[in-house]
Amino acid sequence: MKVIETIAEMRKIRRELNGTVGFVPTMGYLHEGHLSLVKRSREADDYTIASIFVNPSQFGPEEDFECYPRDYARDFSLLEKEQAHFLFMPQATEMYPEGFDTWVDVGKVTELLEGAIRPGHFRGVATVVTKLFNIVNPTRAYFGQKDAQQCVVIRKMVKDLNINLEMIIVPTVREPDGLAMSSRNVYLAPEERQQARVIYEALRTAHAMWVEGGRDPEVIKKAMLKMMREKPLATVDYISIASPQTLEELEWAEPHSIVSLAVRFGKTRLIDNLFLE
Amino acid sequence: MKVIETIAEMRKIRRELNGTVGFVPTMGYLHEGHLSLVKRSREADDYTIASIFVNPSQFGPEEDFECYPRDYARDFSLLEKEQAHFLFMPQATEMYPEGFDTWVDVGKVTELLEGAIRPGHFRGVATVVTKLFNIVNPTRAYFGQKDAQQCVVIRKMVKDLNINLEMIIVPTVREPDGLAMSSRNVYLAPEERQQARVIYEALRTAHAMWVEGGRDPEVIKKAMLKMMREKPLATVDYISIASPQTLEELEWAEPHSIVSLAVRFGKTRLIDNLFLE
Repeated sequence: MKVIETIAEMRKIRRELNGTVGFVPTMGYLHEGHLSLVKRSREADDYTIASIFVNPSQFGPEEDFECYPRDYARDFSLLEKEQAHFLFMPQATEMYPEGFDTWVDVGKVTELLEGAIRPGHFRGVATVVTKLFNIVNPTRAYFGQKDAQQCVVIRKMVKDLNINLEMIIVPTVREPDGLAMSSRNVYLAPEERQQARVIYEALRTAHAMWVEGGRDPEVIKKAMLKMMREKPLATVDYISIASPQTLEELEWAEPHSIVSLAVRFGKTRLIDNLFLE
Repeated sequence: MKVIETIAEMRKIRRELNGTVGFVPTMGYLHEGHLSLVKRSREADDYTIASIFVNPSQFGPEEDFECYPRDYARDFSLLEKEQAHFLFMPQATEMYPEGFDTWVDVGKVTELLEGAIRPGHFRGVATVVTKLFNIVNPTRAYFGQKDAQQCVVIRKMVKDLNINLEMIIVPTVREPDGLAMSSRNVYLAPEERQQARVIYEALRTAHAMWVEGGRDPEVIKKAMLKMMREKPLATVDYISIASPQTLEELEWAEPHSIVSLAVRFGKTRLIDNLFLE
């Protein structure tokens, strides 16, 4: 696997690739979720380019940019094992030079859920993803369903701005107890980690209620909230049952509605989601 | 010249072009200024694609979107005469489908001058140009210096978002009396048209003062304003002497400073500019 550290080199190498190019943008500290994206690209594309860039513009001033976990040596060996062809690791000073001031704003869908709690987050995500797409020029781009709203935002951006690539959304990879894989899981203290399994249990409960004919979002949310409240270390930011396109809350659950939630354990914020189907 | 009316067809044709592609985005009602961009592309590129799209999102609610001059038959024959290879004319309903909500915002440089008087204008310009760039994927894109701030905004956007093309800025084309070519000149009543030559005369005066050692922007602007005030039909929106990169007003004129102004004649708003060099 070749490591590429500058935009100019990435462009040069990209120009010389003949065939389809899959792109897996990440913030590093890779886990099985990221690697499932790489695997999917390796199956579908002639070339697989992963990127690692901890994007400062998507972190709020009070968030964990500085201490976001990093382990490039481990990431490198994991990507090499998955046979990614290229790892693009640009510098923040090259991505955001002095005077940088152009932003991509995906409108209303960025103001809900995560966007309501993390103002500016999706503007940072949409902007860096646009930049990376323009640099890497992939045939396909791979994102994990775990970050459901990110998938909706980027899919909308690709459509609205006529970005010429195919979006591939890959199912969430989970720990044996159901906790969604996340680089932030490493922050959890043992007791928090133990209680964090309630997130997926609550999602499974919502799904079971749906299968049994439950259609009232308020009833489903109430049952989920009750489960969360039994875990003393969990603080719920939101529970949502929403349209998978607009992420607007539904008055009545429908097939493909998305149940999502954000829960804090101490300073660690975890998100997860499931489709009702 | 082939006319292309859908995004899908434009993409399909673009994929089949081998060689460099020059792109001249316009709002139609073409004049010698536009044609000079086409000529430049025909000299430099293997293929030249012009577009005509009167972009609704860059007009304010009180502006002239509905009555913006249109003459597609004439535009077609002018472009054909210049031997453009393709004319892309997408529909507004395809460019801005129901639910469209993604915007490109080029920050501070869009808030000055034209941006201060036409809020949202450059957001509309940056967004449609991003879309057109993504659809056409040109090697080079051509813009006229007459729209100086538009050139600065798009150049900054291309740099900040790592858009992979070369920007070519082409000098302003003028009528024999110096008035910059503009599709909006057609709005001018005969008496207004006669007085509008003062715009270029004021710019020439500024340039002459600079050549003779004048460096104080306030003195230069005052001389320009005096000339404008002698024309009873002219109302000055602004006169600016600014940095060519940031468009911020200068306390002291420097080589390459840009002198620009916006003047209204009745409901017709005209802009023009000149570099001090």
